[in-house]
Amino acid sequence: MLEEMPGSLGTSASLALRLGQTLFSSASLFFMCLDVNFYGYTAFCFLVTVMGLVIPWSLTLGLVDGYSVFVKRPTRQPGVMTVIVVGDWVLSFLSLGAACSTASVAQVMMAEMVPPCPVKICSRYSISAAMAFLSWFLSFASSLFNLWILPKL
Amino acid sequence: MLEEMPGSLGTSASLALRLGQTLFSSASLFFMCLDVNFYGYTAFCFLVTVMGLVIPWSLTLGLVDGYSVFVKRPTRQPGVMTVIVVGDWVLSFLSLGAACSTASVAQVMMAEMVPPCPVKICSRYSISAAMAFLSWFLSFASSLFNLWILPKL
Repeated sequence: MLEEMPGSLGTSASLALRLGQTLFSSASLFFMCLDVNFYGYTAFCFLVTVMGLVIPWSLTLGLVDGYSVFVKRPTRQPGVMTVIVVGDWVLSFLSLGAACSTASVAQVMMAEMVPPCPVKICSRYSISAAMAFLSWFLSFASSLFNLWILPKL
Repeated sequence: MLEEMPGSLGTSASLALRLGQTLFSSASLFFMCLDVNFYGYTAFCFLVTVMGLVIPWSLTLGLVDGYSVFVKRPTRQPGVMTVIVVGDWVLSFLSLGAACSTASVAQVMMAEMVPPCPVKICSRYSISAAMAFLSWFLSFASSLFNLWILPKL
């Protein structure tokens, strides 16, 4: 049928991208939630919400990719691909927004808060923001690859 | 040659989008810079930098659109269109990041700062963030329309 575009749904590159997204967004959620009270700040709640959406989405599509690589290649339908591309796009914008918000709030907390934010806590916020950036980058790559094959279906 | 896609380079819809981008990013810069000290916060400096990039970019492409609508239609070359699409994308991501950062820092300043941020100042920050969001939305629309016609060139 159509030539293989590495990174589009059902290829091993896509499986790697999805695993990376799941990994980084779980790490971001882990650093934000564990032992830290995140619910006092809108930006941190937003990050937790978005990561809670990204993890099941990437995990589901990763399972589809794994099935497609190791068992049997399903046919790609244009309607399903459109839903996947739009979902990836929306989630990648949300992750970018959440990562930027978290990073800037963590920076303000380090610079301005009275009393100053403890280094242990604030560095966790920063690491969480960095993980969210990585997750954004991978989900942006996924959406680009899937968008690329969309007109050919 | 190719059918007209409204919103792609050289159409009147694109001219309207570019004018809107210029307007909203100028408004964002205006509310952030005038009478307010923005240079104490990384997020606000980032917003000013990004808006300083968006304004000349949108203005230049708006002039190209205006020339194309009112005088003479230039031919669209694939190389030039690729540069425009990539530039629009990068700028739309940067505007989204800057808008999210500014909005969340403004929210933290309203909620947490000791002494509390004066309402007059903080509402200007919020308005500036809202204008940056609108500018992001329009530049995202431009990049989508231009991306759509790219494979047909």
